[in-house]
Formats: sequence, C-alpha cells, structure tokens
Amino acid sequence: MYQSKLFVKTQKEVPKEEVSINSQLLLRAGFIDKLMAGVYSFLPLGLRVLKKIEKVIREELEKIGAQEILLPALHPKENWERTNRWGQEVMFKLRSRSGKELGLGWTHEEIITPLVKKFVKSYRDLPLALYQIQVKFRDELRAKSGLLRGVEFIMKDLYSFHQTLEDLENYYEKVKKAYFQIFKRCGIGKQTFLTLASGGTFSEYSHEFQTLTPFGEDFIYLCEKCKVGINQQIIKEKNYRCYQCGNEKLEVKKAIEVGNIFNLKEKFARYFNLTFKDREGKEKFVLMGCYGIGLPRLMGAIVEVNHDEKGICWPIEIAPFQVHLISVREKREIKKTAQTIYQLLENQKIEVLYDDRAKSVGEKFVDCDLIGIPLRMVISEKSLRKKSVEIKERKKKVARLIKIKDLLKFLKEKLSLC
Amino acid sequence: MYQSKLFVKTQKEVPKEEVSINSQLLLRAGFIDKLMAGVYSFLPLGLRVLKKIEKVIREELEKIGAQEILLPALHPKENWERTNRWGQEVMFKLRSRSGKELGLGWTHEEIITPLVKKFVKSYRDLPLALYQIQVKFRDELRAKSGLLRGVEFIMKDLYSFHQTLEDLENYYEKVKKAYFQIFKRCGIGKQTFLTLASGGTFSEYSHEFQTLTPFGEDFIYLCEKCKVGINQQIIKEKNYRCYQCGNEKLEVKKAIEVGNIFNLKEKFARYFNLTFKDREGKEKFVLMGCYGIGLPRLMGAIVEVNHDEKGICWPIEIAPFQVHLISVREKREIKKTAQTIYQLLENQKIEVLYDDRAKSVGEKFVDCDLIGIPLRMVISEKSLRKKSVEIKERKKKVARLIKIKDLLKFLKEKLSLC
Repeated sequence: MYQSKLFVKTQKEVPKEEVSINSQLLLRAGFIDKLMAGVYSFLPLGLRVLKKIEKVIREELEKIGAQEILLPALHPKENWERTNRWGQEVMFKLRSRSGKELGLGWTHEEIITPLVKKFVKSYRDLPLALYQIQVKFRDELRAKSGLLRGVEFIMKDLYSFHQTLEDLENYYEKVKKAYFQIFKRCGIGKQTFLTLASGGTFSEYSHEFQTLTPFGEDFIYLCEKCKVGINQQIIKEKNYRCYQCGNEKLEVKKAIEVGNIFNLKEKFARYFNLTFKDREGKEKFVLMGCYGIGLPRLMGAIVEVNHDEKGICWPIEIAPFQVHLISVREKREIKKTAQTIYQLLENQKIEVLYDDRAKSVGEKFVDCDLIGIPLRMVISEKSLRKKSVEIKERKKKVARLIKIKDLLKFLKEKLSLC
Repeated sequence: MYQSKLFVKTQKEVPKEEVSINSQLLLRAGFIDKLMAGVYSFLPLGLRVLKKIEKVIREELEKIGAQEILLPALHPKENWERTNRWGQEVMFKLRSRSGKELGLGWTHEEIITPLVKKFVKSYRDLPLALYQIQVKFRDELRAKSGLLRGVEFIMKDLYSFHQTLEDLENYYEKVKKAYFQIFKRCGIGKQTFLTLASGGTFSEYSHEFQTLTPFGEDFIYLCEKCKVGINQQIIKEKNYRCYQCGNEKLEVKKAIEVGNIFNLKEKFARYFNLTFKDREGKEKFVLMGCYGIGLPRLMGAIVEVNHDEKGICWPIEIAPFQVHLISVREKREIKKTAQTIYQLLENQKIEVLYDDRAKSVGEKFVDCDLIGIPLRMVISEKSLRKKSVEIKERKKKVARLIKIKDLLKFLKEKLSLC
C-alpha cells in the first residue's frame, strides 16, 4: 500500500487522559481513534493487526476442532433472569419501542446454552466446541487503560460441551495449549504465564493467562521454577506458596490478563436444562467449559510488551505490514527503483507499506519507528551505487545492505523467521 | 468437513411466525437460528456464507480504492444531537452507570464525519473512501421477514469524501459498478436493477438496488428497455414513465432492496464543519457520498432468488462448501474410496462437506438438496464398478458419471464456471 493514500497520519499529541503506553502509541501511530472512554475505532493499520490476531486465533482453534458461529449482541431479558445475572451492573439495559426489555451481551453462556439444547440430544452429539469472534459490551466505570479495559470490544469466546468430567478436563488442557500457541504467535509467549485464579460458584479454580509488563493492572505471584502464577485473590489461601512445588520464594509481578478459561461443569446446563441421553439411555447434564480472549486487550498487551522509546515493534505474524519501504530522495532513479521493488514484493504477496510521501527522510524514519513494521527497507543513492537496498529490523540497531538480486530470497528467509 | 461433526442438524419444522421463504429455508437447513424477532444467530454453515459475501464485497471495494476500518456501535448522544437525528425512533437508547446517554448506531455518518475531520485538512487528503463491515441496530417494529428486516444485522457501509461535485459523481458511478459486480458474484445479478428513489434533504435522488422476487417487500416500476426501475415513492412525480427513455409501459414488480447509495453532498460536512483547503487556500466543505449493503438481507435475497421446492441452490462463489460428498452405503470399499476422495479434494483446497453420517441415502439426498451446495458427488457400488463418481449440479435434474482419474480436472473446470 502507498503511504500517501493511507488516510491516517501519525500524530504528535494524544488526549492527555490517555495514560497507558499502549493507547498512547496506538493513537499516535494512527492505529486507533478514541470515540469516548473505553470505545475505540480501528483505523486501517489497527484493523489489519486485529484481523491478523483473528487469523491466528481461528487457526489454533480449528486445530482443536472448534466450529465458528456468530451470536447476537442484543439479548432478551428472560435468558438472563434464568441465571440470575440480569442484575449484574456491567450489563447495559435497554427497551425496544414495543416495550421489550433487552440487554447487551457481555458474555454468551445465556445464549449458547439454549441454542445447543436445540441440537444436542444424545451422547453421539458430544463433545462439541463452538466459538465466535464478536463484539461485547460492558458498562465499565474505570475505562482508562486504553485498549485494556473496553466498554465495547471484540472478544473471542469459546464454549465446550462434554459427557464426562474427564472429557471436559482433557479439552480444557487442549485449550491451554492452544492459548499458549496463540500468545506465542502474537509475540508475548515468553511473558505470558498460566495463573491460578478463583473458580466462581461451581469450580474450585479457574485459570488466567497473565502477561508480565511493568504497566499491568493486576499483580500475580510467580514461581520462576514452575513457570506458573497465582493471582492476588487466592494467594493467601495458598499461604504464599507455589501450588505445584511448594516454593515460597514467589515473585510479585505486574501483569495484564490476556485470557481466561473456566470449568463451568453443570452450572449453565442446570439453568437451561441442557441434558443428553448417555449410552445407557440415562438423561444427564451436559458439562461445559468456557474460554475467553479479548482481542483489543490482547493487542494492547502486545504493544505494552513490544515497544521501545521510539514506538511499537510488531511481532511479524500480526504486524500490519511486513516491510516498510522508504525512498529517501525524490530523485527519479531512486523513485523508479523503489516503485519496481514495491511491485516485485506485492507480486510475491509480501505485504509492503511504501512511504512515497513528499517528506524528509528524517520524518519518514520517525514515523517508521513509531508504526513498528518489522523490516525497514531504504532505497538511497548510496545503496543504489552498490546495487543494494538497506534493511534494518525494527528491534535491531544496525542496518545492512542486501543486493537487489538477492532481495527476495533474503526476505523470504527473514519473514519466516523473525 | 465431516457432516457428522457439524453441530447443526436440518429440521423439519420451523417457528410458525417465520413466513418468509428465506428464513424458512435457512432455519430448516440449519444456517441460522432465531433468538427473537429480527435477531438471528449465524450457525457454522450460515457464517461460512456470510464470510464469503464479506470477501466478495471486500474484493470489489478494494478495487475502487476503499480502505477498511471498524467503527464502534456505541455512540455518544452529542454526535446525534448535532444532526438532529437523536430523536429518530429506530435508535436504541441507553444510559451508562455513570449517567452518560448513549445510542446504538444504525448508520455511521455521525461518527465517521468527525473522525475524518481529524485527518483531512487539505485538497491533498482527498478523495478518500472508507468502509466497514460492522453490526448495526435498528428498533424495527415489523421485524418479520426473516433476514430481510433485522433489528441487529451486519452491514457494509462505505463513505466517500471529495473536493468537487464532479469527483463525487464519478465515484458514485464507480460504486454503482462495484455494486453490480457484487450482486452478480452473489448470484442475483440478473434479477437486480438500479432503481431511482427519493434523495432526502440534500439531493434530488438517491438510488436503490432492487432484486426482483415474488416475495419482495417493495414495489418497483421497471423499464424493461433501459433495465432501470423507479420506486413507489417517486413514480407519481415521474408520471409513471421511465426517467431515461420516457417509456410508459412500466412493469410493476415486487422486489427486495439489497443496496442503496446516497449523494450526501455537503449535508454532514456542514453539521460537523468538515472542511478542506483547496488549491487556492480557500476553505470549503467536503462533499460526501454514502453507500450501504445489509449482509443478512443480501443473504436472504439470494435465497429468495436461488431456491426450488427442495431447498436452497447456492451460487458457487458464496456457497458454504463447493462439493457435497455422499457415500451411499456403509460398505468398507465405498467408505474407503469416499475418504480418499475427501482427502484429495481437501488437499486441493476444494471445499467439501462429506456426509459420513449413518443415515439412509434417501435422508442424505433430502438434506443435500435442502442445504444447497452446488455440486453433489455420490460414491456408490454402481459408480465404483465404473471407476467413477456420480456428479449432479444442484440446479440440474440429471447426474453424470465422471471417472475418478478425471475428477480433479473436471471439478476445477466446473468450479471456475458454474
């Protein structure tokens, strides 16, 4: 894409109430725009990142046999009265002209359980895993951490349905692995830890995935040996020890919760009488698990972990583009070569943002570092004299010259690795 | 995909208030589920179709230089007070815990105009075209035509921004062409006509795209010669004549509005003071166009046009799968061959739904016709004796035998044509 055509521009100033690093950088770089507290628009670069995160999530969930669906955001009051959650204060409530009381969904157990009841009758219909990537609404009072705590946000929510507790627990473990794979591909694998949390009514514990960052909103107690955490709400129960090895030297760290998984067991099946006939013809409650990832929050966490003083450093799989091509002068030969290379990369399906704007090279470099595309490729008189382009990785300090004839080979290797 | 793993099943009965053909077929075939009037869930097959329609729309809009963004559904009251549209009765209104008055977006001029104002300053920043595929909410009293009139629905809304009326009109014509291309690829090209409609406050006329079907909600006056329509609201002004050739023999037809385009001119730019500096340094209002397609409504219209007494007949580009593979007996050799062919097609990225269920061939055929995948491929003892599979196009009456060794070649030709 030509940067001159890109409708957003980088900005020097951002709203002063935006205190978090993620929202400052994403707003300045033009990835998002703030409509009001906790409500953001995704601009072209931001939407590209969001769609790449969606792709990673879809690929990992399809691997564990989950089927994608799309549920509505508008919910009838009745469904939520069944579970006694109509009164929850995060729920936005409204009334239609015809007088019907409605709520905006902040989670979907109340919708998916009666839906599954329509199709699941027998043990032959189980197990089953359904997910969606869909917009949620939560009436949050403190929506102040950029994308980390949204009032409106896209969420991936997965629900699984099982005959036996053993089958549910097996699937729960599969989801854990899929989540680690997702976070690894999103560039926060090393900083993200499975963390024990309280389980609500029906289960002893649930699990959170916490990403360490100095700007996190949560505290976790981390066992460096077992690579697991315990969250603040339950560390006292555990006597400030690792629940796996008994280690007492836990480190307290700031973290962002990027995912959570719950073993719901019979909870929602009882509310909606979701049962199945087992092999012996006996009617039993279906056992459920639920598993969430907030996408803007994940994007925010990725930026909190992957940035430096100059801007964002996108991990390759979710970067808005793979290569940021910059021509340093308006000289005809340089422009012509840049244009040729741009076409070459486009034809090879390498995603390039081409900074063809009439700006100084200094300004282009500043924007380039702020936007954070993994590879910067500069074409200058100097590089052309050596029949080369200058390539610098966003996370590294030094650039190197690559012969134009070797460029495609170099890029293909680089992009599959970095 | 294995049909035995597909969580939905076809159904014999649907809610009796569902009177439209599109919702009856889509519900029976398990593409959608109804949560309440005008609010539907998309189940795996339905979501696949929705995503294919999205892909077609994205491809055609990218060709005319539109950039994708994603705007929020929750809107602050202030933006809508500016345009005096806060009072519109289709708008759902709610209040946050902190007392903020909010509305659910049923269109996005009120959000995109101030957003564009942040980035557009000069003639150099124009023209610009931005679109989104995003959920809308409309408090409709008569939500009774299945997917045709939704209370919650996914919409593609495109907004364009221009320096001059001429440039706006040029782009308006480009969008018309893109829309015809979209409707053609979605299998309703022949039935869809550009239709003159009233233009609202600022423009003399707008245009609708109306798809003829006996089950349509609208009436249009069609000139068979010019292939254009005039809608019911303005035909009287036109003295019941074609506005292009003067033809008085217009045919009155029932139709579904699948898209609309508006020349907004300065309307919203004035409300939000969206201006730009022209080449002479003079401050002028930006001229705008807006262009909508409701995706579920389009899906409903496609079904209204493409079905027979047995079920849906999906056009190839938006079918949930390309091939419906059916093995007629549980005999080991047949099952083995079916499995091999399934893998072969999967490896070739041909999308196959494989009916591996323990059902009679009669039941499988009934479901197959209802679901409406373009090519049915049957493997039976008879076909295997001739080293062949039996292929039938959904819209045709007769099947034919294709040698297994020629299968891939045959399918690739067929799928690029049918």
